Amino acid sequence: MQVVLVSPRNPLNIGAAARAMANFGFSRLAVVAPYAPNWREARSAVGAPELLRNAREYATLAEAVAGCALVIGTGTVTHRKPEQPVVKLPVLAPEISRCLGRGGDVALVFGPEKRGLTRDDLSYCHLLVEIPTTPEQPSMNLGQAVAVCLYELATRAIETETAAAAGETAAGRSGEAAPQENPATSATLDLLAGVIDQVMTAADYSPPEMRAANRHDLRLLLRRLTLTERDGRRILRLFRRVLWRLRR
Amino acid sequence: MQVVLVSPRNPLNIGAAARAMANFGFSRLAVVAPYAPNWREARSAVGAPELLRNAREYATLAEAVAGCALVIGTGTVTHRKPEQPVVKLPVLAPEISRCLGRGGDVALVFGPEKRGLTRDDLSYCHLLVEIPTTPEQPSMNLGQAVAVCLYELATRAIETETAAAAGETAAGRSGEAAPQENPATSATLDLLAGVIDQVMTAADYSPPEMRAANRHDLRLLLRRLTLTERDGRRILRLFRRVLWRLRR
Repeated sequence: MQVVLVSPRNPLNIGAAARAMANFGFSRLAVVAPYAPNWREARSAVGAPELLRNAREYATLAEAVAGCALVIGTGTVTHRKPEQPVVKLPVLAPEISRCLGRGGDVALVFGPEKRGLTRDDLSYCHLLVEIPTTPEQPSMNLGQAVAVCLYELATRAIETETAAAAGETAAGRSGEAAPQENPATSATLDLLAGVIDQVMTAADYSPPEMRAANRHDLRLLLRRLTLTERDGRRILRLFRRVLWRLRR
Repeated sequence: MQVVLVSPRNPLNIGAAARAMANFGFSRLAVVAPYAPNWREARSAVGAPELLRNAREYATLAEAVAGCALVIGTGTVTHRKPEQPVVKLPVLAPEISRCLGRGGDVALVFGPEKRGLTRDDLSYCHLLVEIPTTPEQPSMNLGQAVAVCLYELATRAIETETAAAAGETAAGRSGEAAPQENPATSATLDLLAGVIDQVMTAADYSPPEMRAANRHDLRLLLRRLTLTERDGRRILRLFRRVLWRLRR
């Protein structure tokens, strides 16, 4: 499982998130579009854990989660109606176990301190996790939210740990296992969404002003379907064929 | 249940601890011997939760937990052999439920950032709680440790919440209930420890150079016994009688 921080701002929060990862035995950190000076400061801080220096940097969330079959968004869902299933943190572990057990990689995504994940960020998520805070003070500090989530997953999900090891092994020797039956990666879904979008345009499916909204809904729809990698590839071939026909 | 911070140093950590309390619905904060300028800064910070302004201040840990029947110390136990039972955080809730259900108050105690709770602080604790971190990076940031503990207790201990309400009601009308059968408070145990110490001195029980160590062991012993308030009072009367005799 990897932890993804989208545009983190405060170096202390970045450091705290990394430290919580080290505390609970997680090592893969990805950072999306960080504010460069603060990111440099956080990475070079005295006592910064190894995993912070090894963190991967991406320009977009889509790239950061491209290899993942289950992308989980975090944040408070009080002020907007969520567009995908919401799972409470104490029951998240089995969801992750299931994905890891099928050989898929998982990303847990945290938004920036002030505003959280945007609607566009969330459209890359298969589900949202809710930390059960009080209605009076629902919003958590970034470093503390990371600590609470990772504590929960490290402590409750003994199956996850085992499944994670098994999953990583299966992914490592993808020729031997049956990767076709693995859940579709975010990258495959994005490829598919791109081709379907072109098909919709080529078929004059919707007026130009509706296209951004349709693209958004399509991303969410594809994530709701829980396609296998094989399903994803099959549908991709179909739409490519359709597109070729439409353009003739 | 009350949260006790012993000599917290960093205003950001104090603020983070208070915020985690607000996130998970805890309201009673006590602070022992804080570093005055930082404590003032933390309390007057913009957005400081109400509970931080209402926090109680004590000179010693003994005073802060005087009214509690179960005092739980936090911290990593790797570098010293614990002198009382150690409970892992995921199974702490039932212990707290039991105490609250019997009408006793509970304190969860966090030490200062750098050194954690001292051996003397720990001698006021009935048990220690261990957050299951990795051996490679066992030490947690104060604000994150508070968040993780309170998340666990707020989420898992539905019985605790109910029992807490019941317990607080019982404590509120102690005339009606049977407070005699409540667990002995820390204040009663300290009173008892004081008289027994005088008895040991009056009886020349141990050489003067051993007295501090004996006092320490005595505090721990009394907390192991899980005395009721009635037991505590009864033993206190016995030792007062003995002391009076010895001094005649």
